[in-house]
Amino acid sequence: MPVINEFFLDLPENYLFSDIAKRVKKYKEENPEADIIRLGIGDVTLPLPKVAIDAMHKAVDEMANADTFRGYGPEQGYEFLRQAIAEDYKRRGVNLDIDEIFISDGSKSDLGNFTDLLDRDNRIAIIDPVYPVYIDSNVMFGRCGKFGEDGRWSNLIYIPCTADNDFIPDFPSEVPDVVYLCYPNNPTGTVLTKEQLSKWVDYALEHNIIILFDSAYEAFISEDNIPHSIYEIEGADKVAVEFRSFSKTAGFTGVRCGYTVVPKKLNFKGKNGVEGNLNRMWCRRQTTKFNGTAYIVQRAAEATLTDEGRRETKELVNYYMNNVSLLRKSLQGIGLEVYGGCNAPYIWIRVPKGETSWSFFERMLKEKHIVSTPGVGFGPSGEGYLRITGFGKYEDTLRVIDRLKNWKL
Amino acid sequence: MPVINEFFLDLPENYLFSDIAKRVKKYKEENPEADIIRLGIGDVTLPLPKVAIDAMHKAVDEMANADTFRGYGPEQGYEFLRQAIAEDYKRRGVNLDIDEIFISDGSKSDLGNFTDLLDRDNRIAIIDPVYPVYIDSNVMFGRCGKFGEDGRWSNLIYIPCTADNDFIPDFPSEVPDVVYLCYPNNPTGTVLTKEQLSKWVDYALEHNIIILFDSAYEAFISEDNIPHSIYEIEGADKVAVEFRSFSKTAGFTGVRCGYTVVPKKLNFKGKNGVEGNLNRMWCRRQTTKFNGTAYIVQRAAEATLTDEGRRETKELVNYYMNNVSLLRKSLQGIGLEVYGGCNAPYIWIRVPKGETSWSFFERMLKEKHIVSTPGVGFGPSGEGYLRITGFGKYEDTLRVIDRLKNWKL
Repeated sequence: MPVINEFFLDLPENYLFSDIAKRVKKYKEENPEADIIRLGIGDVTLPLPKVAIDAMHKAVDEMANADTFRGYGPEQGYEFLRQAIAEDYKRRGVNLDIDEIFISDGSKSDLGNFTDLLDRDNRIAIIDPVYPVYIDSNVMFGRCGKFGEDGRWSNLIYIPCTADNDFIPDFPSEVPDVVYLCYPNNPTGTVLTKEQLSKWVDYALEHNIIILFDSAYEAFISEDNIPHSIYEIEGADKVAVEFRSFSKTAGFTGVRCGYTVVPKKLNFKGKNGVEGNLNRMWCRRQTTKFNGTAYIVQRAAEATLTDEGRRETKELVNYYMNNVSLLRKSLQGIGLEVYGGCNAPYIWIRVPKGETSWSFFERMLKEKHIVSTPGVGFGPSGEGYLRITGFGKYEDTLRVIDRLKNWKL
Repeated sequence: MPVINEFFLDLPENYLFSDIAKRVKKYKEENPEADIIRLGIGDVTLPLPKVAIDAMHKAVDEMANADTFRGYGPEQGYEFLRQAIAEDYKRRGVNLDIDEIFISDGSKSDLGNFTDLLDRDNRIAIIDPVYPVYIDSNVMFGRCGKFGEDGRWSNLIYIPCTADNDFIPDFPSEVPDVVYLCYPNNPTGTVLTKEQLSKWVDYALEHNIIILFDSAYEAFISEDNIPHSIYEIEGADKVAVEFRSFSKTAGFTGVRCGYTVVPKKLNFKGKNGVEGNLNRMWCRRQTTKFNGTAYIVQRAAEATLTDEGRRETKELVNYYMNNVSLLRKSLQGIGLEVYGGCNAPYIWIRVPKGETSWSFFERMLKEKHIVSTPGVGFGPSGEGYLRITGFGKYEDTLRVIDRLKNWKL
């Protein structure tokens, strides 16, 4: 008789975005004239850069001709793209071998699948609030214990990041085996300086910990001294895996391309003391359970890393960052405490005293017809905050600012 | 200290195709004038059908325009494609709810990832010889035991399919929990009639077994009474998950699109007796660890399911099947025993008496400059056989036939 993986059943239904959708729908039904502007979901709105469009048309034409048609590609990605990514890293002083770069259909897949390489017995630490995939993909393999009424998993190590500690994660009282870090951070939009991140690398080196570093938003960094890659820090290649994506950088959320860097120096032991190399294990995982990303998509990704591609993607990023910057000023102008929004497309708003994430979400919806995301949806330490994004259209951003003007909190 | 998943280290390096490549390279170096024709790897050679090319150009243009741009799509796939697939099933009398269809970047991913839903404690059965992904993805989670010197995994149930049993799998002496079936079969190219497959469905119903049914090659079926889908058989929706792909049907090996059908009736219990529904679990798995297939790719796939798309993909299939049919006759003409090749793009050749898979592979390479795949690379019961494919170009197929003529075995 088959035995299912019962840990899946420990996952509570993920209601956040469907909950939001339901509330918005209900409000809209009761107030059909309300002109609702959505700044909740982190999806891009601008079309793809021209270089990517051109590259895809060209690649599609290649697929129409027997002489240039491409069938199965290497599961790890074509060399042309891995080479372009390696050169991109070189611009930041990071030297990678192309065998350390693995192309995929997106960071979410890789972040989820990477835990295939870990035994069930690992203590996982996450920043709180957090991107839910880090937790859920570990719950599925029994690494998080049970979900309690306090909104916490019994066996997960939470590292609270709130205004109280300036959103700088402290080392937890219990040393974890694996820690997820995401900088620039989703959902708070905050960053770590090179010194602050270096402390985490040193901590990982000292305690022999794996850092799973999500840098999906590195393109939004505008300030100096904020590392774009964890490998800008000495020793990180002995402890860290880095996950990156073209989704937000180049508007690829519907095109699907990401990549993961797994340095060759990552050696760790199994339950019985046998040493394994994470680079070789990930390669084996991907060649066995993945068949590579579409050729057409890889050509589009490559195009965004040319000089012209960089110029065009920078324009996209600037557009969203301009939105964020305007929103930030506007929110501060009406007396709200806001965080993030300088090196990330997200603003983290502290709700006024006496309010909760959900109550302020409701007020913003009903009084200003603006959809945000309640911070508590990202974890217990997100209570008391709201996330809004700069991914809307510029015109909508201006309308939001106009609505916020003179809002009596 | 992190603990890696040591089961990964149980996997022997997969040498088959690199072994073949090395031998071919060596021969080529020693015999630079040799004009080598490759019929080893199962990759398509014809360009994409025009409908798919046109659909992709159109979709790329949509991505260039803010009004038609698509960001994140549903992880399970766009409704337009799931609807088109449901209609495709309807043509064979199979009624599926579109929520039972999950679009992916290919069957290999889904076949590998589906075992996320299973506890480690499941006895897995495979047909021998077999597509190696079924085994390797289970080895990674400790379900297969150790690899022995006899080329067998200690905890895996092998169901030999050879000429001795007409390639019809018998029920194993020990009842498994999960069985992988692939029909039309890779590598043998053989099929099961509706009656033969019905017995397996009944067996699964009787013993409460999950069938993971790989029908990646269904488009190559030419004879009547061979089921294209396991759901053509009564009761299969209570026991079977079906994996399908556009790779071989429509030449999508480099485009990447597949789909998996997980019926809503699939309820099984976990270790502690809690019942889970595989459809809901797979949905949760995919929404958590996958971000959907590229919009452009889904439009291309949809196009192949239109009337014009069917006509064009049928032409591709006919082209390869014509190759196979010519090869089959030619091989029989020189006195070889051959199997498959009537409803699948693969021919399974029994090597002459006194030869092994590898020795006959070498002879074919050295005497006729033809690259095949040694059957033993697909499992112990593949010893004594060679696989060749119809996926080459027609012109090359004719040259192969010419070379085989009057070959003294």
